[in-house]
Amino acid sequence: MQTKILLQDHQIPKHWYNVAADLDSSPAPILHPGTLAPVGPEDLTSIFPMSLIEQEVSRERWIEIPEEVQKIYQLWRPSPLYRAHRLEAALKTPARIYYKYEGVSPAGSHKPNSAIPQAYYNKMAGIKRLATETGAGQWGCSLSLANSYFGLETTVYMVRVSYGQKPYRKNLMELWGAEVIPSPSNRTEAGRRMLAEAPDTTGSLGMAISEAVEDAASHSDTNYALGSVLNHVCLHQTVIGLEAIEQLKLVEDYPDVVIGCCGGGSNLAGLTFPFVRDKINGKQIRLLAVEPNSCPTLTKGSYAFDFGDTAKLTPITKMYTLGHDFVPPGIHAGGLRYHGASALVSQLHHEGIIEAAALPQTACFEGAVMFARTEGIVPAPESSHAIRAAIDEAVKAREEGQQRTILFNLSGHGHFDMSSYEAYLGGQLEDYAYPEENIAASLAKLPQVK
Amino acid sequence: MQTKILLQDHQIPKHWYNVAADLDSSPAPILHPGTLAPVGPEDLTSIFPMSLIEQEVSRERWIEIPEEVQKIYQLWRPSPLYRAHRLEAALKTPARIYYKYEGVSPAGSHKPNSAIPQAYYNKMAGIKRLATETGAGQWGCSLSLANSYFGLETTVYMVRVSYGQKPYRKNLMELWGAEVIPSPSNRTEAGRRMLAEAPDTTGSLGMAISEAVEDAASHSDTNYALGSVLNHVCLHQTVIGLEAIEQLKLVEDYPDVVIGCCGGGSNLAGLTFPFVRDKINGKQIRLLAVEPNSCPTLTKGSYAFDFGDTAKLTPITKMYTLGHDFVPPGIHAGGLRYHGASALVSQLHHEGIIEAAALPQTACFEGAVMFARTEGIVPAPESSHAIRAAIDEAVKAREEGQQRTILFNLSGHGHFDMSSYEAYLGGQLEDYAYPEENIAASLAKLPQVK
Repeated sequence: MQTKILLQDHQIPKHWYNVAADLDSSPAPILHPGTLAPVGPEDLTSIFPMSLIEQEVSRERWIEIPEEVQKIYQLWRPSPLYRAHRLEAALKTPARIYYKYEGVSPAGSHKPNSAIPQAYYNKMAGIKRLATETGAGQWGCSLSLANSYFGLETTVYMVRVSYGQKPYRKNLMELWGAEVIPSPSNRTEAGRRMLAEAPDTTGSLGMAISEAVEDAASHSDTNYALGSVLNHVCLHQTVIGLEAIEQLKLVEDYPDVVIGCCGGGSNLAGLTFPFVRDKINGKQIRLLAVEPNSCPTLTKGSYAFDFGDTAKLTPITKMYTLGHDFVPPGIHAGGLRYHGASALVSQLHHEGIIEAAALPQTACFEGAVMFARTEGIVPAPESSHAIRAAIDEAVKAREEGQQRTILFNLSGHGHFDMSSYEAYLGGQLEDYAYPEENIAASLAKLPQVK
Repeated sequence: MQTKILLQDHQIPKHWYNVAADLDSSPAPILHPGTLAPVGPEDLTSIFPMSLIEQEVSRERWIEIPEEVQKIYQLWRPSPLYRAHRLEAALKTPARIYYKYEGVSPAGSHKPNSAIPQAYYNKMAGIKRLATETGAGQWGCSLSLANSYFGLETTVYMVRVSYGQKPYRKNLMELWGAEVIPSPSNRTEAGRRMLAEAPDTTGSLGMAISEAVEDAASHSDTNYALGSVLNHVCLHQTVIGLEAIEQLKLVEDYPDVVIGCCGGGSNLAGLTFPFVRDKINGKQIRLLAVEPNSCPTLTKGSYAFDFGDTAKLTPITKMYTLGHDFVPPGIHAGGLRYHGASALVSQLHHEGIIEAAALPQTACFEGAVMFARTEGIVPAPESSHAIRAAIDEAVKAREEGQQRTILFNLSGHGHFDMSSYEAYLGGQLEDYAYPEENIAASLAKLPQVK
């Protein structure tokens, strides 16, 4: 009765899997935020290195992982796949539940899977510094870690309210050598404008993105890095699913359903994309994205062209969106509070390959507590959405008296989210209704693309 | 160039190693705190199950690890052994540095290695609840986790000042189902007495021990559990060193020096005891305990009979001690702020088998930051003492132009200690002088044992 299914270092994937190679229809074009005309690679060179731009638009199926990146992956990869025997017993389910645990990275989540190659390619391109934004801080920490490995400087624009509320995440970024700036700041034109308009603003992710992009675009030695949504980020994350497939082979199993939480989509993409090929080739397998019901991008959004940020500075992509100025309620799964979703995840959802479900946060925390008390690991609030969906699938299996193999992504630990657990255990966590009216209002403001 | 050296699940040790079997001289007797006469096993049955008492006094070399304990160990064991290539490169040292990483347990340190069997044996003995004390919270969390696996209740008396300062540790214990009580409390006679005398007291570890022991002794379904110092705790921790020996064999290496930080002594014992046999048999190997210079038990204490707690309720053991009412300065490595040391570690130090060194806290944090920026992992402040000593050994190797193999225990991560890093990075951390006068004063109050 094996609990922990490990691979050896030499079994770390040598290539990332690019799902775009296996899609029937072409991805929609990326549009310029000002002209609404399709952008070419050259439009992105002021903020990204060409190697990442090439990955962004590539339709090659397998893209080689640089040796230097593999070496750093080895510090914690291959990540373990666990059979959740103790959770299964507590649920009295006939289902077999497996989870891939990405919290073993030093930053505590799957995010370094992309931060490491992003730092590497920028270093190779002669870049000295990377600018980025962070909300709750997961991505900012991961990029700071990656840059410390490669000797790059890091500037993180941290949403001001989080800067005050999440001091430990800020400390972690600083420990890895980053400069962390509460956003909006006086450092950028965009920030100064925002501060002049509203000196007491709490800031927002959209504003922080604008600052980081402006910083990168206006300094020749500096580029910008994003932790989710983009194709190359999803690409890098596929090491998760590629490893999981090999690990399941070792125990001669194969999932009936594969589950990931979904904000921008990177951890979901990482686990599910390598299974998309099998599904396209006729395999019976369900791929399930789980989002918070208070930010129901895939389940309630429109599949439309929209901006990636509130300030309309980023390129426009076709994606499921709640509208670029939709502001989700202050749920504790900060990493899932994004108005849009990855273009690739969106396309796969649109084509019926990836299903989606939306769950309220207290149900997710209930699942997370059950998980912590059986399996031991404290899940990140984001990951708790996948846990709850897996538990629901396992209970259904029990009710139907059916065997079922469930695989989910435990994308990170919750060591820096203990105050959320305190709120939940203290009965102070509330659920939010679907914000129908807000969504309708923000969807009315989508850019008019022909 | 292997970075991460892993064992398979089936290579988890099947037996703990009992160093008492290999000592020339008999361990000193344990004395009753009131009569100063040697205590027998029966004197301890009100707070410990007989199976643990037997382990406490055993001289058997190998003690079988119950299958149920092995199964839970498998959730994170065998823990990885890392070759610190990146740290070595930064130090430009010819030395090979290895570290055993115990932060992979769900509680984030080596403590569950003993919490799991302690919970198991108490469960087997029909006990329903375990009472314990905790300062910074590492042990309280580990016992809460262990008890959640076995369905035991947990009552943690947490030093009042830590209860206020370390809310995340408290939340973690509660997440795993524990009841956490600020100590001193109204729950016990000892606590009520203390509160009557000093209503505003911050509490102390000595006081919390008294409360937990009283709670256990006065409830027939409740026992007491201790996270360090005792022989059976050191025994359980030897899985660390036993695994490390096998892992080093895989890369055909053997340490010249083995390093662990030392408070009560459990993580040091866990890594070094399995090497003691080799040393006794003539192998050239150094075993090094590193303590804070503000609480220099092994380097400045007396080897004498003393109480384990301030309130003089625990049995008296022969150990290195600074005196049972010595109060160390408020350093950030809370787990190393103990006036005594494990009797076995003390005996081995007295016999010249284990060396000791004392380091100031800022030097340790400097080492920890260098480690985090090269290896990625954020160390616990306690573990940073071992890191700094390993760095110093590696630098010496460089200066002497000599190869050297260094092994140290990275006993835990620092995810719940980020405020300490903030203080260090902000230049707000001070070093303390050796508190010579305080030590002399408290040593003058040792019990007069013939």
